[in-house]
Amino acid sequence: MRQFVVLGHDAPVDSEFSLDDLAGGAGRLDALCRCVNAAFCLSHAIREDARVFLVLRDELTLRFEGSELRYLSPDERNIASLIRQGIEAKEGAIGHRENESTPGIYASKRGFEAVLDSLDGTVIQLHEDGDPVVELEPPEDPVFVLSDHNDFTEREADLLGEAADERVRLGPKALHGDDAITVAHNYLDTAGYVQY
Amino acid sequence: MRQFVVLGHDAPVDSEFSLDDLAGGAGRLDALCRCVNAAFCLSHAIREDARVFLVLRDELTLRFEGSELRYLSPDERNIASLIRQGIEAKEGAIGHRENESTPGIYASKRGFEAVLDSLDGTVIQLHEDGDPVVELEPPEDPVFVLSDHNDFTEREADLLGEAADERVRLGPKALHGDDAITVAHNYLDTAGYVQY
Repeated sequence: MRQFVVLGHDAPVDSEFSLDDLAGGAGRLDALCRCVNAAFCLSHAIREDARVFLVLRDELTLRFEGSELRYLSPDERNIASLIRQGIEAKEGAIGHRENESTPGIYASKRGFEAVLDSLDGTVIQLHEDGDPVVELEPPEDPVFVLSDHNDFTEREADLLGEAADERVRLGPKALHGDDAITVAHNYLDTAGYVQY
Repeated sequence: MRQFVVLGHDAPVDSEFSLDDLAGGAGRLDALCRCVNAAFCLSHAIREDARVFLVLRDELTLRFEGSELRYLSPDERNIASLIRQGIEAKEGAIGHRENESTPGIYASKRGFEAVLDSLDGTVIQLHEDGDPVVELEPPEDPVFVLSDHNDFTEREADLLGEAADERVRLGPKALHGDDAITVAHNYLDTAGYVQY
């Protein structure tokens, strides 16, 4: 299982946002939509061994399960509409208990720390001072933690620093979160294959 | 210079499309927008050494110059709006002569063959039967040719087969065009760096 935790600092936690203004009024939700796309969408297929946690403003988390997802197409507007339904489902999420909105998408009132505590796997921090990813022996169950267009807050960086098993760098350029997910997938897809 | 030629078979060549229906009425323009994003957008920077040709329905081509682009943000809606202005500029493009719509975006009435003939560089065909990209010595001026959600037509495949200097595969999974661009960039960014 490959897991991706993405922190949305400005993202909405209320479903009253417009699908016509994702990059503006919806707090750069476009960037989170692209992360969901990158995590799951292959050409004419879904990565069933992937899971995403979108942590919205450290108070609401949407869990996406690749093996259960339906109705996911790669465009930002479609994914934003699924996220909006996920946010609406928070009303039925009591405490940390999840509430399913559409197939494979679960809302819970959890922040970053609670999500981090719940994870099984090797937590990998993407960091410009990390080791080149090519030197990493691909773990069985990697968990990548990414931020949106904002940096991690100090508290988030501390939590992640404590939880992280590895600190790696994907290349010499600073990538957007969705591109980092794409590169991480490709590294895991190809690592160990002499001929693919 | 890294160049990407992307063929949009169903894309509009008329600017009368809605930004609210990119994945539907606008002929999967969302997929082309994501290719433009992947080609140019870094975190807080633009790849100035990149160039994209969007070939729309084999009759209208938009050339994007990384070193000249302005007003490019990574969301699909913004890029679609720039494409729409590019399509409007076709009226001022006579023959193969280009007409600039917004900074760094040029429209011309060219199809795939004319674009292919105009290219300098090493043409790389992405193909599931190609050699793994890691075996490719990164060329100075690579040109990647990709199709949208449709396969290349027989004629396009023939033209590309004749023009291609290399045939490579990026990994064992069939990727969307934008993800292929992201992976190709990362390969070129990191190739040859023992430590990056």
